Amino acid sequence: MLLSSIDQMPSSSLARYLDGEFWEIKDAFRDAISKSDLFQSSCYERTLDQNRDLTADRLYHILRQPVMKEHLKNQLKEKQKGFINKSMSITEVVCAADMNTGVKLGVVCGLYGGAVNNLGSPEQKIKFYLPVSELQFTGMFAMTERGHGSNVRGIITEARYDQPTQEFIIHTPSEDAHKMYIGNAMKGNFAAVFAQLIINGESQGPHCFVVPIRDENGVMWPGVTVSDMKHKEGLHGVDNGILIFDNVRIPRENLLGKFGSVSADGLYSSPALRGNRFNAMLAALTPTRLGLTVQAMAAMKLGLIIAVCYSHSRRQFGPKDQEEVKIMEHQTQNLRLMPHLSAALALTFTSRYAADLMDDALCKGEDLQSNRALQALVAGLKAYSTWANVACLQDCRECTGGMGFMMENRIPSLKCDSDVFVTFEGDNMVMLQVVVRELLTQYTKQMGNNLVMGLIRNLTSSASDSLRTSFLGFSVDKVGDLMFLLKAVRYRERVLQRSLASRLYTKVDKNKEEFFMAWNSCLHHVITLAMAHIHRVTLEQFALAVQDCQIKEDRALLSKFCLLHGTSLVYQERAWYLEHKYLTPTTSRQIRSQLLELCRSVKDDALKVVDDFNIPSCCIQAPIAGIANPRAEWAFYPKPEYPSSTQPLSKL
Amino acid sequence: MLLSSIDQMPSSSLARYLDGEFWEIKDAFRDAISKSDLFQSSCYERTLDQNRDLTADRLYHILRQPVMKEHLKNQLKEKQKGFINKSMSITEVVCAADMNTGVKLGVVCGLYGGAVNNLGSPEQKIKFYLPVSELQFTGMFAMTERGHGSNVRGIITEARYDQPTQEFIIHTPSEDAHKMYIGNAMKGNFAAVFAQLIINGESQGPHCFVVPIRDENGVMWPGVTVSDMKHKEGLHGVDNGILIFDNVRIPRENLLGKFGSVSADGLYSSPALRGNRFNAMLAALTPTRLGLTVQAMAAMKLGLIIAVCYSHSRRQFGPKDQEEVKIMEHQTQNLRLMPHLSAALALTFTSRYAADLMDDALCKGEDLQSNRALQALVAGLKAYSTWANVACLQDCRECTGGMGFMMENRIPSLKCDSDVFVTFEGDNMVMLQVVVRELLTQYTKQMGNNLVMGLIRNLTSSASDSLRTSFLGFSVDKVGDLMFLLKAVRYRERVLQRSLASRLYTKVDKNKEEFFMAWNSCLHHVITLAMAHIHRVTLEQFALAVQDCQIKEDRALLSKFCLLHGTSLVYQERAWYLEHKYLTPTTSRQIRSQLLELCRSVKDDALKVVDDFNIPSCCIQAPIAGIANPRAEWAFYPKPEYPSSTQPLSKL
Repeated sequence: MLLSSIDQMPSSSLARYLDGEFWEIKDAFRDAISKSDLFQSSCYERTLDQNRDLTADRLYHILRQPVMKEHLKNQLKEKQKGFINKSMSITEVVCAADMNTGVKLGVVCGLYGGAVNNLGSPEQKIKFYLPVSELQFTGMFAMTERGHGSNVRGIITEARYDQPTQEFIIHTPSEDAHKMYIGNAMKGNFAAVFAQLIINGESQGPHCFVVPIRDENGVMWPGVTVSDMKHKEGLHGVDNGILIFDNVRIPRENLLGKFGSVSADGLYSSPALRGNRFNAMLAALTPTRLGLTVQAMAAMKLGLIIAVCYSHSRRQFGPKDQEEVKIMEHQTQNLRLMPHLSAALALTFTSRYAADLMDDALCKGEDLQSNRALQALVAGLKAYSTWANVACLQDCRECTGGMGFMMENRIPSLKCDSDVFVTFEGDNMVMLQVVVRELLTQYTKQMGNNLVMGLIRNLTSSASDSLRTSFLGFSVDKVGDLMFLLKAVRYRERVLQRSLASRLYTKVDKNKEEFFMAWNSCLHHVITLAMAHIHRVTLEQFALAVQDCQIKEDRALLSKFCLLHGTSLVYQERAWYLEHKYLTPTTSRQIRSQLLELCRSVKDDALKVVDDFNIPSCCIQAPIAGIANPRAEWAFYPKPEYPSSTQPLSKL
Repeated sequence: MLLSSIDQMPSSSLARYLDGEFWEIKDAFRDAISKSDLFQSSCYERTLDQNRDLTADRLYHILRQPVMKEHLKNQLKEKQKGFINKSMSITEVVCAADMNTGVKLGVVCGLYGGAVNNLGSPEQKIKFYLPVSELQFTGMFAMTERGHGSNVRGIITEARYDQPTQEFIIHTPSEDAHKMYIGNAMKGNFAAVFAQLIINGESQGPHCFVVPIRDENGVMWPGVTVSDMKHKEGLHGVDNGILIFDNVRIPRENLLGKFGSVSADGLYSSPALRGNRFNAMLAALTPTRLGLTVQAMAAMKLGLIIAVCYSHSRRQFGPKDQEEVKIMEHQTQNLRLMPHLSAALALTFTSRYAADLMDDALCKGEDLQSNRALQALVAGLKAYSTWANVACLQDCRECTGGMGFMMENRIPSLKCDSDVFVTFEGDNMVMLQVVVRELLTQYTKQMGNNLVMGLIRNLTSSASDSLRTSFLGFSVDKVGDLMFLLKAVRYRERVLQRSLASRLYTKVDKNKEEFFMAWNSCLHHVITLAMAHIHRVTLEQFALAVQDCQIKEDRALLSKFCLLHGTSLVYQERAWYLEHKYLTPTTSRQIRSQLLELCRSVKDDALKVVDDFNIPSCCIQAPIAGIANPRAEWAFYPKPEYPSSTQPLSKL
């Protein structure tokens, strides 16, 4: 098998800037992937078992990399500077190479590893995780049950303490307690299982236990049954299964006891209040949730590289009796692709910002759970990014026509593999409700104890009216100013927050409606606010990243995409702005013209940007993006060059 | 293998109404499919060859049905009453059973059959199509080339007349002339090939030729090469390939000569002007284009059956200390699903209307090409319906969470199989341009010869201002009135049309911009107008169907969904209405409240509607929709009953 040539060109300044502080780690993984036979070829005729075996081989290859081994060792320690950022860098590069491997890495190191390292004692880390870094075994993460996916608090798997033997008895009381969709279920050796801890018949709420599933020879632990869920839309290399426990006995030491432990004689103790305990455990998974944003972003970048390159090679239609134009010149083509490209850039900077916040908090020894802004950001980013990815890949598929439907051109498998991101590890609709819960709680804390009243006071007393006034100072031609866009998205978030608080207050406090019912009747409002929050943060972070960029040309280029991102966000919600008279009919139309004009003006720059995503050609694969493939010569289009020669259309 | 029980219940009045005039044909196919072993099981471990063989077997099973044989015989005759409507009925039922079979049926009977029967002589029909109805051979349709997919007018395959032998020499002059994505390429025997007819070195434009590809033993015709394009995102049972012709000789009689024929001594004659000829040929494919709308609609209905049933079984979250609520009760869940359901109903009536128009025209011996309104409708419906389907299935997938990602629950394969509809047989972006071209031409014809000026005259002299006035007569509470919604969508179409005409006039006539450049700079406007046109027609046709419904209860139910469809259309475009001051901020908010309220109010009725789609359980397959599957017991949820017991939330 022929190894694809590793890109020898030194990275451009923009590529380095997009890679961020840990570019060396990324380069090390790019190199390892480009040099490995395992990542060179794609094949669409593998059986499920062959796909799973290949994914396992790829996972081990990644785990064997020296830089990875060192990283995993660091995971066992506390307060490792930049640990989250490094993890995200690795995640992005591995996911770009193969989403299956990335997801499986996330299960083994992020979820199982996250549970053991964040909820376990030093001894437990050494016993249950150190061997993972030494490739002795792998783990899985068993939280979701058949009856409770989104509402995980309602899980019913039991863990009864049996004092005479000092063991926990893990048990599945009903079909609805089956642990479902468990990744690595058919291959992993240990599971981090969430179950209701019961001592002397009394429940202490959900806790996490390490349960042996099978030994290195595949012999099952007594009482454990695993069944295979087999075929999915994508991620064929990830083995998802169902775990059923029939009075499975595990030693008392297998309870991961950071937020609740049981003494030999059956006494329960916990540093956390009962209501907070489960949230505190879930907070340990915050980095994994951010990982999903990075995974979605990797898929977006790949799709965009392929669609942008092809759009600059393929020609169709044109002025009479002249050469046909590149399809990128078609107004609708650049209008569909460029906003996604700006969103991918916004996500690059915003996910790094979130990782920085987490790294800072962890280094200071702060717990992540009580950082409401961070929790809101990470939950919201998960929803925003995974939906942005679905929309982006769909447009990439459509913008590449029949070529984009062919497996050899990579987009179909990216779509199928990443589609599940919008519902797994926290359904997006649930994530957005988390955002608003965190935002409301944050303000309540600042303002006193009454959730709703606190929020209203905060809002009315603060900036909303002055914001409104400051808007009135804008002249019409300021619509093209980034400050105008930033103020617009901030204004929208504030107003949505105030009106939601007011509605909830009326329903719950005044009309005494049941809370769930009241909340549910505002759910569309809740979701809208959550998205507005994330939109605002992505635009702010993009703007800051532009400001921080030291190379003048790069800053100029990023600045255009940042303006496009903001314009696109305001354009999407222009109905709301018109309803609130923040935009006039005239300025609203200006926003549309501005969007069309910006998409047109960055379409050639897009080639530089996708090039600077710096993804090795063995990961891109698509012949329509200039990666030759002897199996699909019919799909080959040479890679377009940047800067492209000026097209007559560019002057339109 | 166990045959699934055929639904013995007599159809409800609504089911009959949704089925339409040709319900007996639909029932005959439902019965044939339900009774056949071939359609009972799904399997996700087949190789490409196995998938293709199964699809071929299924196709033959369908072709062998007595009612199908009769239908195909009728295809050879002219002016068969209801032929198009019957074809659409068959297409819908077959596609619901298996999209691969439906697409392959479309290739063999719709495209190849359409070409032979509409462009050929009686003798050619008997020679090249009668045997298809007798299962002696199958055909394929070779228009698209590597270099020209959307812009088919630019195809470069050559057909040179060789007078000494009285043969045409079909030749592929370059790689860009390869006939690509050809369905049935690996199995079919004859191809309807579009090529530039060249006589004595002079080109007469594209014509269609029947070219033998391989005989019944698989022996290739001299000079023909076929290569396999293999793996796609979906439609794994459809064999797409590449055809290459190396000076392939075919008899003179193989030119399908309705719009241009060649005498033995090389004299060309045509009843059509050169500029119109190719369009006239393409018009023969109008029914196939409508078929795509029906295929997309079948996929939508299946997705909705599954998502609606599961949403009424699955429970998650709820009021404190009470049973969790059905996920359908979540505001965002019914908000996401119900508009798709109303769109599926709108498409049911609108596609039937389009088929009626075609049947009428064909019975009267009118040609379809010059019926501009019909061409605009069919092209627009293709784009609208296939995008509606992609959006619908994506929401169905997300609304069914992890279950919806599992192959056993059917949604993933529906998504992957129907995704290509948005770009094949006319990319949607191209289709929408066709809509506007037809609309503009239609008005130009009415108004005199100057395209743009005619249009402007037509518009300014007519209804736009009175429309505006009539709006001002509406009081605010009329937003909930269907008439308000109908007037709104009509107003929007007119205004968009007038403003587009005015822009084109300024650019082309006044500023002398090159036409393609001018058109391209208005492309977003063009697309917007085309969608507005189709929105308007779907709402009108839905409203008419409500009016025509004879059973009071059914009419009442359809009326709610019709109002929802109109509300959803206006809600989507409320920014435009606000920009044009057709909605005030207050009425715009009312539209949103109305949308939320309508979605809530029809969520239980949705169960009756999806039941009345009348799709056999062997086609639905999904265990989460109550179809038991021993292979995936973990996915089974019993079918919810209608009318569901009143939920407390329904009173919200």
